[in-house]
Amino acid sequence: MLPFWFQFMVGVVGAVMSDSESKSDREKDLKERWKVLDSEELLKLGYFRIRKDRCELPDGRIMPAYYVVEFNNWVQMLSITSNKQMILVEQYRHATGESYLELPGGSSEPQNGEDEATSALRELEEETGYTGKVEFLCLHEPNPALQSNQVQVYLATGCEKVHEQQLDPYEDINVLLKPVPEVYKMAEAGIFKHSLFLATLMLARPKLIELGLL
Amino acid sequence: MLPFWFQFMVGVVGAVMSDSESKSDREKDLKERWKVLDSEELLKLGYFRIRKDRCELPDGRIMPAYYVVEFNNWVQMLSITSNKQMILVEQYRHATGESYLELPGGSSEPQNGEDEATSALRELEEETGYTGKVEFLCLHEPNPALQSNQVQVYLATGCEKVHEQQLDPYEDINVLLKPVPEVYKMAEAGIFKHSLFLATLMLARPKLIELGLL
Repeated sequence: MLPFWFQFMVGVVGAVMSDSESKSDREKDLKERWKVLDSEELLKLGYFRIRKDRCELPDGRIMPAYYVVEFNNWVQMLSITSNKQMILVEQYRHATGESYLELPGGSSEPQNGEDEATSALRELEEETGYTGKVEFLCLHEPNPALQSNQVQVYLATGCEKVHEQQLDPYEDINVLLKPVPEVYKMAEAGIFKHSLFLATLMLARPKLIELGLL
Repeated sequence: MLPFWFQFMVGVVGAVMSDSESKSDREKDLKERWKVLDSEELLKLGYFRIRKDRCELPDGRIMPAYYVVEFNNWVQMLSITSNKQMILVEQYRHATGESYLELPGGSSEPQNGEDEATSALRELEEETGYTGKVEFLCLHEPNPALQSNQVQVYLATGCEKVHEQQLDPYEDINVLLKPVPEVYKMAEAGIFKHSLFLATLMLARPKLIELGLL
C-alpha cells in the first residue's frame, strides 16, 4: 500500500492540474533545481556561513545574487514524563530581547560524530536533567527560502529526572512541566511565540493523539 | 474580565513557582534584558544585516559575541476564497533546492511606507491575483535566538480573483486552492515542510473553527 503522504502528494498534483482558476500556472514545473553558476562565501562564523550564489533558472534566466545561510541541522526534543507531562524550557533569547517557552533543543553536532537523535537527547539532558526513550517524530525546515537546514524533532517518552541541569556558560533555563492538552490550549491562545516550537506542535498532534496524550 | 491569554500567563507563572521538580531554577528571572556593551555590523545586504553584540548578563557575566540577524518583519496572508478554499502557493526555494506549498507572503516594506497589513495584501495580490477583506490573525517569531523579526499573519476572507499574477522577475508560483480541513490533514500528514507555514496553521486553528471553516 502506498504511504499516507504519497496519496496526499498525488492529490496535490492532481489539484494543481485540474484547478481551472490557475490555468496560466499549469505549465510551471517547479521540481527542477536551479543551477549554481558560481558561489561566494561572504561570512563564516562559529556556527553559520553565508554564501552568495549566482544561479541559472530552468528557463535560462540568470539570478545574479541569491543569499543562503548554512547551519547544521537543528534538533528539538518533545519530551513526555512518566506522568504524561510535556517538558518545556523557558529561556532568554537576545535577538528579540524576550524570554520564551519552547522545547529543549539546539544545534546538531555532526562534527563531533553525533547524529541528530543523539544531539536531541544531549540537549534534553543538559537543559533539563531528564532522559527518556527516544524515537524520531517529524521534521520541518525553518526557512527554505534562506536557510538550507532542517529541524529534526525527536520524541522522548517515559522521561525521568536523572540529574541536575548541566548548562552552557551563558545559559539560564527554567524547566516547566505541563499536561499535553494544556500545552495545546496555551499554543492556541498565543502564549508561545517561537515559530519552530509551534510548527512542531502542529506536526506532532497525530502522534500525541495516538499515544492517548491529547 | 481578564483576556484569555492573561489567564494563561498567570497559569504559566504559577506553574513555574510551584513546580517542585525545578526548585533549583526558581530564582531565575529571565525577564531582564541583556545589556549591549558594544555592537558591530558584520555584513549588510539588500534585505538583511548581521551584527555582533557583546553583552552583559543580569548577573554580570559577559557574553563576548552574540550574533543577531536583522530583517524587516515578514508577512503571510492566510486567504479564504468565497468558496471556502484556502489559497496556497507552490514555489521553488533555492536554499534547500526544493519546491514548497505555503502561504502567500514575503517581506514587509516599511521603507516604502507600507504597514504589514498592506504588505501582506500586496503579496497576496501579486502572487495569486486574488484579493479579499483583511484583518490581523496572529504573529510568531521565526527564531528569537538569532533573528529579531516577527512573522505577522493576516487573514483575507471572501477572496476573489481580480487579475492575473504579477510576479517579480525571478518568481515562478503555482496557485492551489484547498478546503481548509484538507489543508490541516495534509499538514498532519507531513506534506508541508516550511516551519513558518506550519506555525501559522497551529495558531490559526481557533479562528478557522470560529468561522466554521474547520
